[in-house]
Amino acid sequence: MNDNTHTLRIKRMGIDTYQEAVVYMLSGCHVCSSEGFRAQSRVRIRVNKKSIIATLNILNNSSFLSPDEAGLSESAWNLLEAEEGEIAQLSHPDPVDSMNYVRSKVYGERLPRSEFYEIIDDIVKGKYTDIHLSSFITACANDSLNIEEIEFLTEAMIDAGDKLQWHTSPVVDKHCVGGLPGNRTTPIVVSIVTSCGLTMPKTSSRSITSPAGTADMMETITPVELGLNDIRRVVEKECGCIVWGGSVNLSPADDILIRVERALDLDSEGQLIASVLSKKKAAGSTHVILDIPVGPTAKVSSESMAHKIIYGLEEVGRRLGLHVKTVVTDGTQPVGRGIGPALEARDVLSVLSGEKDYPRDLRERSVELAAKLLEMSGYVKDGEGRGKALEIIDSGKAYNKLIAICEAQGGFREPGNSVYQHTIESDTKGTVISIDNHMLAKVAKLAGAPSNKTAGIVLHVKKGDQLEKGQPMITIHSEASGTLEYALEYVKKHKGIFKLQLDEW
Amino acid sequence: MNDNTHTLRIKRMGIDTYQEAVVYMLSGCHVCSSEGFRAQSRVRIRVNKKSIIATLNILNNSSFLSPDEAGLSESAWNLLEAEEGEIAQLSHPDPVDSMNYVRSKVYGERLPRSEFYEIIDDIVKGKYTDIHLSSFITACANDSLNIEEIEFLTEAMIDAGDKLQWHTSPVVDKHCVGGLPGNRTTPIVVSIVTSCGLTMPKTSSRSITSPAGTADMMETITPVELGLNDIRRVVEKECGCIVWGGSVNLSPADDILIRVERALDLDSEGQLIASVLSKKKAAGSTHVILDIPVGPTAKVSSESMAHKIIYGLEEVGRRLGLHVKTVVTDGTQPVGRGIGPALEARDVLSVLSGEKDYPRDLRERSVELAAKLLEMSGYVKDGEGRGKALEIIDSGKAYNKLIAICEAQGGFREPGNSVYQHTIESDTKGTVISIDNHMLAKVAKLAGAPSNKTAGIVLHVKKGDQLEKGQPMITIHSEASGTLEYALEYVKKHKGIFKLQLDEW
Repeated sequence: MNDNTHTLRIKRMGIDTYQEAVVYMLSGCHVCSSEGFRAQSRVRIRVNKKSIIATLNILNNSSFLSPDEAGLSESAWNLLEAEEGEIAQLSHPDPVDSMNYVRSKVYGERLPRSEFYEIIDDIVKGKYTDIHLSSFITACANDSLNIEEIEFLTEAMIDAGDKLQWHTSPVVDKHCVGGLPGNRTTPIVVSIVTSCGLTMPKTSSRSITSPAGTADMMETITPVELGLNDIRRVVEKECGCIVWGGSVNLSPADDILIRVERALDLDSEGQLIASVLSKKKAAGSTHVILDIPVGPTAKVSSESMAHKIIYGLEEVGRRLGLHVKTVVTDGTQPVGRGIGPALEARDVLSVLSGEKDYPRDLRERSVELAAKLLEMSGYVKDGEGRGKALEIIDSGKAYNKLIAICEAQGGFREPGNSVYQHTIESDTKGTVISIDNHMLAKVAKLAGAPSNKTAGIVLHVKKGDQLEKGQPMITIHSEASGTLEYALEYVKKHKGIFKLQLDEW
Repeated sequence: MNDNTHTLRIKRMGIDTYQEAVVYMLSGCHVCSSEGFRAQSRVRIRVNKKSIIATLNILNNSSFLSPDEAGLSESAWNLLEAEEGEIAQLSHPDPVDSMNYVRSKVYGERLPRSEFYEIIDDIVKGKYTDIHLSSFITACANDSLNIEEIEFLTEAMIDAGDKLQWHTSPVVDKHCVGGLPGNRTTPIVVSIVTSCGLTMPKTSSRSITSPAGTADMMETITPVELGLNDIRRVVEKECGCIVWGGSVNLSPADDILIRVERALDLDSEGQLIASVLSKKKAAGSTHVILDIPVGPTAKVSSESMAHKIIYGLEEVGRRLGLHVKTVVTDGTQPVGRGIGPALEARDVLSVLSGEKDYPRDLRERSVELAAKLLEMSGYVKDGEGRGKALEIIDSGKAYNKLIAICEAQGGFREPGNSVYQHTIESDTKGTVISIDNHMLAKVAKLAGAPSNKTAGIVLHVKKGDQLEKGQPMITIHSEASGTLEYALEYVKKHKGIFKLQLDEW
């Protein structure tokens, strides 16, 4: 094969296609002809020693590109790390052999460790298209992975990325198995336990299917995309940090899978366990507390489902050498008031600063989780965690700690304010008997959360509240009139967000 | 909502993204700001009464687009059917509610008729991304649809498109449940039965995972993308046609699903039955013969799998009011010599013209299927079909009929010749005891088939042949040096395509 016939000069097109790497070539260019490429062909692009795989789009318009150029989308450009005008070699990628294992899984077969490693390796190398990723995620849903397979998947995800090591023990961590809007305990727990001198280098996810992840929330008050050296510096100084896990390449497959899970609005049990534990283990944690909210519209909707996930988390944790404890919490309604990155940040700050009107439930949950961590790490005796945690909050130490962590991460800032607000009032009198978390989350997402940081919902009522007609129930916050309209329209169409019992006596 | 704030002038970008509709907007344009759109957002685009949904790519380069313009990919442009510079309204699409049903299916629930209709309706309207389509296909694989669900899916696919009606009965049809390279009996069967005056308006698919579908093969000798009126004209004149089904909007969902199935290399039983029968029913057929090749490396790999598919095809057919008969054939090796569109066309022409060296097996199978159709339609008595079919071929009537059909479809032409050929010889002496259809198909695809029409393989040996060292086994044909190299590399790496038994006696 003559290399000269397969080279083009690369050009940055400035087209943002999000995570999908796209390469643009002119219709009839010599590489397309000699390689037999068509639109949507997968193409290997090599510059120097680095190579990526991208999806081909064919340009019929020669004003964008010359025949000896290959245009790259922003994601392809960033992956390739080359210079404008450098010479790239273009070829067919090898067949993705590990898709054979995905097909085996679709047909219900068990996969050995080596096959999970090959699948995850190919995913991290960008060899899977969205179609492949979606099939893998779908095939792993509905309980199709047994505990051993979840262990293999988790290990493969850990080994596909960086691993943090800490010269101290214990290293504590917490995680909430999502599904409960506004349940933003992490920054409070980190502030309490690091105030006690425990090491808690917290790497958080962005949202999967929720209106905000902890990383999304923290980003409204401080930078969260820190490199490995900065994380070490922050943790050495303050005992802890709260950063986005994706920027340090811990379990990088997780971030790729999460994007597709979000588009499918599908969380599989096995993927969930692998996602949580791969991040924790790769972050160097030794003791992990997991918060599992249970409620009809939470991610974990029943006690029996909770037991299965708890068993999976604890058993896979044990196999990985992690001390894992789980706490089942009330998942029947949101925690705190805000739902959406900036609005949740306001709740966190109000709990820690002890503002008059802070959300009681958010403080209570955070204290419970912090107490368990203080106890399981041996910092206090069993039964003394709660008192210690309350003392740290009430003294203002935890608030000061959060600010200090933010300053160390690059500076504390106030969360922003939304541009548009619209309050929805009760059109009747009655007692709130249930709240639909799914639908509330949907409204917050339609309003723009999490990508629009100040968008979301403020919840004015809780279960058991007695409402008068005209009393405010939620305020929708948005950054754009289109998203506000969109959220409002959804609320108008879907009446079951709150169930009221008429007080007729 | 003020409509003026959500409009842009449309511009044809000349970017071929294959089936995926893409819209391009300039970073920071007023619609992105007001609607909160980000890269990969799904966007509804409305011009006049027509609206489509497209995936957003954000341009950072203002030389391609002005801030008041929305660029459209070729697929988006063709779907929207608007004029350059027309004003489009852009908004968030409604949530795809039918994805709730796909999730139910992932979790193993049964879906009622109405939910299949909603899913297929949304798919045909372009509301599903590749991620959604892949999840639906994966969820329907591995026997997860029962017979009733397959019936619902089939009906939904039929009703989502056009339906042909013929003022005659019977209307016969045939289909091969793929998986056997080179099994190109259709043009021969059509030529035989239409020579007898039976009506056989054949709509064929392009390949799913094979190196060629009948439509791909026919396209090398005549136009196959005929509209409804042209099909009627051809059938009125010649009693039959052999056209691509996709161009007449029969079961349009099938063509969308097939693209994703191809990328996954996954054929689910339920999707297979729905794909076959929806096309047949929508084409107005009354009597259908189905060829089911069975062999370890055919699509149907065992008798028990064949029985399940046969039951599904006959039972769903019955529910739809179709007379369906199935013929189980030998699927242990390819049929004919050519594998790839043009190479298979050569086999078909040689059988019909009675060339000295025509492939015996291809003629034999075609005669068997034609005989069954002549009998089940009542044209001859049971047992007399075979004699009649042979008579029609040997008289040259069938050859003349094929040429006449091609002429009516727009003209007969000779299939083309490939640019590159490379013959692989046996490196040892022995008897051929097995042939791997999967691997042969893979080689033909790597060589460029079916998108490169003259690419593929010519097979020089069959099971039972005694080979000398150095005897030709296959010749790879390709249109580009890159694809030839690629196919050769695969052959070098994978030695099990032919299994030889050493003749040591």
